[in-house]
Amino acid sequence: MTEIIRPTFVVDKEICLRNIERMAKKASENKMRFRPHFKTHQSAKIGEWFKLFDVDAITVSSVNMAEYFATNGWKDITIAFPVNVLEITNINRLAANIKLNILVENLDSAQILIKKIRYPIGIYIKIDTGYNRTGIAPSKTGIIENIISCFSQNKKITLKGFLTHTGHTYQARSTNEIFSRHFDALLKMKSLKQRFKIDFPKIEISMGDTPSNTLCTNFSDVDEIRPGNFIFYDLMMENLGVCDYKDIAVRMVCPVVAKQLSRNEIVIYGGAVHLSQDSIANIDGKRMFGRIVIQKDGEKKLLPPLNYVARLSQEHGILKVTQAQFKNFQVGDLVEIIPVHSCLTANLAKKYLTTDGEEILTVNS
Amino acid sequence: MTEIIRPTFVVDKEICLRNIERMAKKASENKMRFRPHFKTHQSAKIGEWFKLFDVDAITVSSVNMAEYFATNGWKDITIAFPVNVLEITNINRLAANIKLNILVENLDSAQILIKKIRYPIGIYIKIDTGYNRTGIAPSKTGIIENIISCFSQNKKITLKGFLTHTGHTYQARSTNEIFSRHFDALLKMKSLKQRFKIDFPKIEISMGDTPSNTLCTNFSDVDEIRPGNFIFYDLMMENLGVCDYKDIAVRMVCPVVAKQLSRNEIVIYGGAVHLSQDSIANIDGKRMFGRIVIQKDGEKKLLPPLNYVARLSQEHGILKVTQAQFKNFQVGDLVEIIPVHSCLTANLAKKYLTTDGEEILTVNS
Repeated sequence: MTEIIRPTFVVDKEICLRNIERMAKKASENKMRFRPHFKTHQSAKIGEWFKLFDVDAITVSSVNMAEYFATNGWKDITIAFPVNVLEITNINRLAANIKLNILVENLDSAQILIKKIRYPIGIYIKIDTGYNRTGIAPSKTGIIENIISCFSQNKKITLKGFLTHTGHTYQARSTNEIFSRHFDALLKMKSLKQRFKIDFPKIEISMGDTPSNTLCTNFSDVDEIRPGNFIFYDLMMENLGVCDYKDIAVRMVCPVVAKQLSRNEIVIYGGAVHLSQDSIANIDGKRMFGRIVIQKDGEKKLLPPLNYVARLSQEHGILKVTQAQFKNFQVGDLVEIIPVHSCLTANLAKKYLTTDGEEILTVNS
Repeated sequence: MTEIIRPTFVVDKEICLRNIERMAKKASENKMRFRPHFKTHQSAKIGEWFKLFDVDAITVSSVNMAEYFATNGWKDITIAFPVNVLEITNINRLAANIKLNILVENLDSAQILIKKIRYPIGIYIKIDTGYNRTGIAPSKTGIIENIISCFSQNKKITLKGFLTHTGHTYQARSTNEIFSRHFDALLKMKSLKQRFKIDFPKIEISMGDTPSNTLCTNFSDVDEIRPGNFIFYDLMMENLGVCDYKDIAVRMVCPVVAKQLSRNEIVIYGGAVHLSQDSIANIDGKRMFGRIVIQKDGEKKLLPPLNYVARLSQEHGILKVTQAQFKNFQVGDLVEIIPVHSCLTANLAKKYLTTDGEEILTVNS
């Protein structure tokens, strides 16, 4: 790490491969398609790591990301974001070249799409299983029927199935709650499949969120999973009981620039533009933006929870540390910060570095 | 705006020029150098707008930004961030080519710098006037003397003065508090200048924060101001009473992708990766990530405060709107979001668009 002089997003490839392998195995054991969400890493190079586990279908969250991965050889992409009809030209261009699936959750979009789609495209109907962000409530089968019947007017459009993101597992207060929210979502999706498979025998269920995809074991009738965060994991996932520290594959490595003895604070070059502003509550009830790993006696050491990233401004990070740890920081040192939310931290990095020193470019490079 | 199909950061050049002119005038009337902070816009093109008002010295917050602006013709740059000694090679390279000032706030850095600085460089000592982020307390004149005497060992190094960022004006609860915090900081800086000008007759005071630089009028003995945010302003500044809505020069323009009638929510394509996660408390006590401007009857209309950006995920923004406004949003519309913190929102944009349709590149392009 001696060549790092600025805040640098560092990825441990070995941990990533282990995380991918575990999820690929779970998908295959449950006879599900593994369609990982690439919004977490947004990198063509990291995409290649998935091919080692026979992944050939992916999920992204924007047309822009779909264009990037299509350019990098991916031929089967689902854009898991309510279709933005203003991007119809780009969507048609993609659909002309790859197997493209898009997400629809309202009749307004459906009515625009049937007039404007020019190439074969798959449609998933977005179902809201309780996260209350987007999607149609599973009880509203009338709206779902209207959308399906609307799509029947354009032969280029194929109904693929129902898709949900059980995002409220991220807000669970226990792993039990993750299980119950997943199970509740599963039942809702199964009942929809049951109802519509009479007319559409090949209709699918697609589910995807890292907490339930990691922890849960009941995926009966589920055709595909789309987890994203699991490749890196982060403090939020550790805090939820979804992963261990040893599963977290990423660090923001930051230089120490100042020490404030009177406040037991260490100032690092590494702020909101590097880490993102996602926080979780620390054990002292305060907002925490990252945990700290230092090099001590030739070994890496995760500092106890009362040492943490306590405040961020644009380029500054302020570490609150205990009196005992204060002396372990020197101006010019590099410290490793475990990010709270790896997806947003990765998005801010122009490029990554692997622990082996390999540079990794992304859609943001 | 008909060509916008994705979340786009739009800048009103006319408002920017008005904001720059006002601040340049204030600096000139108070006989201060106007050294604007370019971390807000991070754009060479927008930098040119400052030249219309005879600005030839600037502030940045990283070596990387200094390199970018030096490449774009700026010859007098202060890096207003505690010097990161790991970047010494880059700092020397810059100092060889332009008038460079760096910031020092501890003896550790000073001791490294005297050994490694190879080209003429200016030093500002960072003073903490109450923000409690970085800097030396003004009462600790012993440490300041030690640092100054350390620097006397390297003839390439010139002590320029004392620099502070009265960042706690951002946390003021009234404009009165902005005045009193500025005045308190001013007194502290003046007493330092008084004390050290016997030995250093040319020693300067540099202050810079948008709230006090905009509102306050007492700058006696201040040699330079370094505001940054004022070129764009934002909701945080409006909320503090620092600017009016008509002074806010930027919008994130976002497509509407879904409507959730049961919750009076509108879903836009525009999330944490576009707006940043900075929030302020709305009048209903909830976190608010942006205010909404819509096009209605051919006119732009700022919606009342109970219509606002209430939640963000990576790419989604959720607008809470009143029942009366709900019908004014249609899938495929573009809405304008006034950002809470324009610096962080601008940093996330790869490029900007002016209201005249001109594309603007930045250090992140």
